[in-house]
Amino acid sequence: MSTDVSAKRPQVAPSQAAERVNWKKRKTELKETKKQTKEAKLLKQLDKQQQRKESAETEQHDQSQHAKGRAYTVSVALPGSVLDNAQSTELRTYLAGQIARACVVFCVDEIVVFDEYGEDVKSVEGEFKGVGKKGHACIQLARILQYLECPQYLRKWFFPKHQDLQYAGLLNPLDSPHHMRIDDESDYREGIVLDRPLKPGKGSLVNCGMRKDVQIDKQLQSGLRVTVKLNKTQKQESKLCKGAVVAPHLPRTEGGIYWGYSVRLASCLSAVFTESPHKEGYDLTIGTSERGSNVDQATLSPFRHLLVVFGGLQGLEASVDTDQNLEVNDPSVLFDLYLNTCPGQGSRTIRTEEAILVSMAGLRRKIDGAFLDVSNGASSNA
Amino acid sequence: MSTDVSAKRPQVAPSQAAERVNWKKRKTELKETKKQTKEAKLLKQLDKQQQRKESAETEQHDQSQHAKGRAYTVSVALPGSVLDNAQSTELRTYLAGQIARACVVFCVDEIVVFDEYGEDVKSVEGEFKGVGKKGHACIQLARILQYLECPQYLRKWFFPKHQDLQYAGLLNPLDSPHHMRIDDESDYREGIVLDRPLKPGKGSLVNCGMRKDVQIDKQLQSGLRVTVKLNKTQKQESKLCKGAVVAPHLPRTEGGIYWGYSVRLASCLSAVFTESPHKEGYDLTIGTSERGSNVDQATLSPFRHLLVVFGGLQGLEASVDTDQNLEVNDPSVLFDLYLNTCPGQGSRTIRTEEAILVSMAGLRRKIDGAFLDVSNGASSNA
Ligand SMILES: C[S@@+](CC[C@H](N)C(=O)[O-])C[C@H]1O[C@@H](n2cnc3c(N)ncnc32)[C@H](O)[C@@H]1O
Ligand SMILES: C[S@@+](CC[C@H](N)C(=O)[O-])C[C@H]1O[C@@H](n2cnc3c(N)ncnc32)[C@H](O)[C@@H]1O
Repeated sequence: MSTDVSAKRPQVAPSQAAERVNWKKRKTELKETKKQTKEAKLLKQLDKQQQRKESAETEQHDQSQHAKGRAYTVSVALPGSVLDNAQSTELRTYLAGQIARACVVFCVDEIVVFDEYGEDVKSVEGEFKGVGKKGHACIQLARILQYLECPQYLRKWFFPKHQDLQYAGLLNPLDSPHHMRIDDESDYREGIVLDRPLKPGKGSLVNCGMRKDVQIDKQLQSGLRVTVKLNKTQKQESKLCKGAVVAPHLPRTEGGIYWGYSVRLASCLSAVFTESPHKEGYDLTIGTSERGSNVDQATLSPFRHLLVVFGGLQGLEASVDTDQNLEVNDPSVLFDLYLNTCPGQGSRTIRTEEAILVSMAGLRRKIDGAFLDVSNGASSNA
Repeated sequence: MSTDVSAKRPQVAPSQAAERVNWKKRKTELKETKKQTKEAKLLKQLDKQQQRKESAETEQHDQSQHAKGRAYTVSVALPGSVLDNAQSTELRTYLAGQIARACVVFCVDEIVVFDEYGEDVKSVEGEFKGVGKKGHACIQLARILQYLECPQYLRKWFFPKHQDLQYAGLLNPLDSPHHMRIDDESDYREGIVLDRPLKPGKGSLVNCGMRKDVQIDKQLQSGLRVTVKLNKTQKQESKLCKGAVVAPHLPRTEGGIYWGYSVRLASCLSAVFTESPHKEGYDLTIGTSERGSNVDQATLSPFRHLLVVFGGLQGLEASVDTDQNLEVNDPSVLFDLYLNTCPGQGSRTIRTEEAILVSMAGLRRKIDGAFLDVSNGASSNA
């Protein structure tokens, strides 16, 4: 399970896209990273604490039918090159938005954008760069996905003007539960730590997009994106709300609320598997292809971390071919299941953005089914 | 079952969109219609003959597991107003294309575009006009759907330049089986009757997008779009191919090949039901809504003509409210089933173009299931 509270902050640096490595800039960035690492440590401690508590809870959960939380995660991976399939700059942006929405509709927790022309270049702080001719697709897709995931009231801080976001006005909103309006009531909120230090021991102030700022228990560096759990009772007359910073998975694991996705770049298909943020990796992997076996005949066993992988214009075969870490030719051997999610399709080819909706719709019930108490299998038969 | 061979020809006149009724033009059109009616009669006779043969075949089919043909049809209905939800003229076109593709992926045979602000104005020869403020959405959606359905090699004849098609270059192709390339081999082809009369008794010439023109058995008026069944054996040395004009449903009912969709305009929601092209009407109707009952618990009984209806921005409630022929408020009473096809959705709202993919993916298996021999129900349990 991810232990990084900052997992959802932009991993693509929102700076201008540099065409090659800018070492001066990289150095400043490294300094900045060190600073952030300290904070991260703090947060990790916090998170470990939480995890311990949680794993105790999870056990309870497994026994209880009425627990609200969702313990498992669903990840989707696709090649950034799908953007190069769009016919105009506006449609490039729109396509990225379709992918984001498709994932949100099916409560996807992580989107991995991999480089289909992968040369296994390590992704470093926004300098990651696909090597495809038309270039830049991976990083642009990741950036738009992150932009859309970020609640509107936080965007001005995390997403300064950038040419990748030039047509962001055309994007349909995700309308996910963590995109709160100013007066919405909620146990959790996303926020940014403000640059208004409080006295030592008084914690920090966080803007959570509400009328009042939130005073959290920990002192954190300003500019950090955090998930805040608001106290159950608040003083009406106070100028501040009170809350505690928590791990971003808590709304899901504790409250059963879908809380958006994190975005990860992978330099090639194999890195999608090997660089999983989950210590145990993905324990159920599904590849999708019209040459897969019929989804109707598939059953999913219970899992902790599901990964569903989509191909680009040329299918997963192309991604396997270009990956120098992979000695296989047949993509199906990489996955626990290799599924045709649309038997009898009426078009010779289903586009990746369509395939996400179609496949996740087909898998939704199987995912639910994997966690259904067998003795309670009333609906698994229709 | 539709008995009109010309059912797939443009029902929206490809002329410039006139803002109000042009009586002079209407008169000429009426004359033209009469001419065409004569041809239609001829074709109907042909079709009846075919139908008699076919219904005999269908009975056989019901008993035989190995029959290739598909006897049932699937129709999808949605309000044209969904186009008004797009943020630019280009995206309006793109959205229409998404809808077309979603329907093709799931082998939809008829798309009905209804006017959500319906005043029950009768649709007459391209003079149909939605009364919505932003207007024109229904007719533009229908036109783009027809344009995309038409095989590329026939478009220059049936779709002269029109501003509704200004951004047609942005549309993704349907890639359906009836969009043949010049050298593709196929039992059936779509074609246009050429203006090159043969001697009486020799039939007509048809351009089917092949290297050779096709000589058909019947003499038909030039300009008619027809479905041609090519003779099994052709003379290599001949300058012409030989074939017979058939009803457009034959590739589906006899060959089991998906053969595109027809497009119908309906002046209000109730007209979607009452103006069915099938004599018996639709015998299974499904409404879709997040407030419907869980699709996982639904079972479909065998049907001849399935209709699946989608709402627009405000859902089917809005379409029911504005329809003066309907005295109900609750859309669910209009349908055999009223289904939530995406329980647990992670976005507050699913867009209509997304809902088509999601819903049809959920229904696909249930449709297949409805026609599965029960004694052979191996896969109905996973
Ligand atoms: C444009 S398609 C790839 C088509 C490519 N020509 C091929 O043969 O694989 C893009 C992606 O959509 C997904 N996809 C398309 N059709 C599918 C199907 N019937 N079942 C599952 N996934 C599908 C796959 O992930 C595929 O790699
Ligand atoms: C934008 S939605 C309509 C939302 C509208 N606010 C409502 O409450 O119905 C457009 C259409 O998508 C379809 N749709 C959306 N979510 C759905 C779901 N969970 N199940 C089935 N259909 C859905 C319905 O046909 C709906 O009318």
